[in-house]
Amino acid sequence: MYKINQNYLKLPGSYLFSTIGKKVNAYSAANPDKNIIRLGIGDVTQPLAPAIIEALHSAVDEMAHVETFHGYAPDLGYAFLRNAIVKGDYESRGCDIQADEIFVSDGAKCDCSNIQELFSLDNVVAVCDPVYPVYVDSNVMAGRTGTYDASTGMWSDVVYMPCTEENGFTPALPKKTPDLIYLCYPNNPTGMAITKAELQKWVDYANEKGALILYDAAYEAYISEEDVPHTIYECDGARTCAIEFRSFSKNAGFTGVRLGYTVVPKDLVRDGGSLHDMWARRHGTKYNGAPYIVQKAGEAVYSEEGRAQLKEQVAYYMNNARTIREGLREAGYTVYGGVNAPYVWLKVPAGMTSWEFFDYLLERAGVVGTPGSGFGPSGEGYFRLTGFGSHENTEKAIERIKKL
Amino acid sequence: MYKINQNYLKLPGSYLFSTIGKKVNAYSAANPDKNIIRLGIGDVTQPLAPAIIEALHSAVDEMAHVETFHGYAPDLGYAFLRNAIVKGDYESRGCDIQADEIFVSDGAKCDCSNIQELFSLDNVVAVCDPVYPVYVDSNVMAGRTGTYDASTGMWSDVVYMPCTEENGFTPALPKKTPDLIYLCYPNNPTGMAITKAELQKWVDYANEKGALILYDAAYEAYISEEDVPHTIYECDGARTCAIEFRSFSKNAGFTGVRLGYTVVPKDLVRDGGSLHDMWARRHGTKYNGAPYIVQKAGEAVYSEEGRAQLKEQVAYYMNNARTIREGLREAGYTVYGGVNAPYVWLKVPAGMTSWEFFDYLLERAGVVGTPGSGFGPSGEGYFRLTGFGSHENTEKAIERIKKL
Repeated sequence: MYKINQNYLKLPGSYLFSTIGKKVNAYSAANPDKNIIRLGIGDVTQPLAPAIIEALHSAVDEMAHVETFHGYAPDLGYAFLRNAIVKGDYESRGCDIQADEIFVSDGAKCDCSNIQELFSLDNVVAVCDPVYPVYVDSNVMAGRTGTYDASTGMWSDVVYMPCTEENGFTPALPKKTPDLIYLCYPNNPTGMAITKAELQKWVDYANEKGALILYDAAYEAYISEEDVPHTIYECDGARTCAIEFRSFSKNAGFTGVRLGYTVVPKDLVRDGGSLHDMWARRHGTKYNGAPYIVQKAGEAVYSEEGRAQLKEQVAYYMNNARTIREGLREAGYTVYGGVNAPYVWLKVPAGMTSWEFFDYLLERAGVVGTPGSGFGPSGEGYFRLTGFGSHENTEKAIERIKKL
Repeated sequence: MYKINQNYLKLPGSYLFSTIGKKVNAYSAANPDKNIIRLGIGDVTQPLAPAIIEALHSAVDEMAHVETFHGYAPDLGYAFLRNAIVKGDYESRGCDIQADEIFVSDGAKCDCSNIQELFSLDNVVAVCDPVYPVYVDSNVMAGRTGTYDASTGMWSDVVYMPCTEENGFTPALPKKTPDLIYLCYPNNPTGMAITKAELQKWVDYANEKGALILYDAAYEAYISEEDVPHTIYECDGARTCAIEFRSFSKNAGFTGVRLGYTVVPKDLVRDGGSLHDMWARRHGTKYNGAPYIVQKAGEAVYSEEGRAQLKEQVAYYMNNARTIREGLREAGYTVYGGVNAPYVWLKVPAGMTSWEFFDYLLERAGVVGTPGSGFGPSGEGYFRLTGFGSHENTEKAIERIKKL
């Protein structure tokens, strides 16, 4: 008689963005005449850049001929892409990362949620609060989070690190020492960044305590300020305490193309196990490589034309973020983020919960955002809007909000 | 102080195909003049069919324009593909499977290895012996297999079901009742099929015992005989005891394109949990959907042109399998498989182990195959060759083997 993994049944409600999707679909079905503007989920809207389209077509043509056909990709990624990544993202910033420490995958979400498999079930996990739900939920499914308290929205065995107005959305070092520390900068959902000096404190702390930082840098392309690190490996000692996740979704519009990578330095060794070798073994056993045509598209991201075109695309979205930030300020809202990240984090009007504000905005302005409380208890009272819409829609949404 | 998942350290050696790759690379480097023919790993060699190339180009063009750009795919797959699958693979065979029971993914290997997450750690796993290594290794990593005995090559807590000449490579019902039963038909590695009557016995057994069958049907396109089921849902009662894995790798040459799907019927409910809902939750949390362009390519597999072209491609590979089967018989080998599957399973000459035969074939004939013992203890004394090479190479390889 087979038995299910009971941890799955502990998960409260369904995944945040599925819930939003259902609410919006229901509203839309009931109000077919209403034009809804979606600034909720972090999905891009601009088409793929010409250099990427060209690379895709060319790779598809290769797949049409026996001489240039590509079957199984190397589990860990093609050398051409791993080399381009090292050169473009690490060497250029003076970071010591080798090509065989790059693990190409179909996206940072998969990697962020799968990485916990490498660790024993008694590790204590620390997350920022608010936080991207995937870090916590993947640990719930594995059984690492204890029991859920619906009244606080918190798990008994998770260390929550509040990120609030008071601490500038950068958490204090936790009182209880965790084993695995998830950090995401530039941050989703708050849109706030961390300085290099501040991140260095975390690296030093992790090395001192023997903890591991799981660093999600999916939004690094949006960094505009000088003292904000693009990778955790800019910090001294990160090779002995950090794994980094990167995505092509936001810098190159690959949300529907699927490509990401994870850096696992060979210096990460514990209890006779090398995390690098373990992750390689996981890829070899449970993954079959990213598609050849997608990896060729990834390579084009690092070409001269690709870079130039994507710089424009990022600027387009950041112009939207600026429109939201400034428009909301004019409308009297307190807003954060939107300078080094495409997310704007606003305080909802006094007396409303995040979900109440979600309904209010949907019903009164036809604008979809993401309720802060969906990202954790300290997100209550906040709301996320993204710069990933079209500029026209973004302006329209802000005009509607101003009129409320 | 973080702690690693010690189960990873229990895994003996590295993944079978990585080991083979390393051996071949070493031989190749030492003998740069030798022409090596690879009939080892089950990778295809024919280019993608024209209908698929056309669908890929067309989808890439859509991604180039804002009006037709596609961002995040639905986690569980686009409706156009799920509907095509139901119509093409289930309705056509009189099976009651609905579109929302189809979960599109980037391949059967990922699904086969991830599915065990839905079950508690105390489930007893049964596998055929020999077997595709992924089923066992993914359970080792999770901690479900007990201790490894290097002398037998077996895990203490796994139920092994020998598939040998004596039982026609169809296992007997196990003496110890398992909870999760992995079956793969047409079989990898033996290349042998199961009859519908025989599979019905397993479905009845699973329903009687409350066990679950994890049915890998990646090779169904190669079935040529009448009484061999194309899907487990041809059997009565399979909806209450079976999950099925399907791949586009072998029927459409997608090994480097990455597409597969898993069928989780809504009737699978246990201890208050619906496996269908749990798998949906897993996809929503840990996966971000298969690429739009790849799903469009998958849709083309079911088009009239696609079907016709792929029928030819499958016939090409099966002609290779026939060449291997008949050639080896002429050379005096005892061979199995190759009628309903692209794999031929041969008995190695008396006095040799599978790995000795691997070295012998590589060094003396320049032909790469897969040692049967790499698939489990009962694979010792056997060797797998695949029909996935080019026809020219396949003929050449057989000529060389005949001359040994």
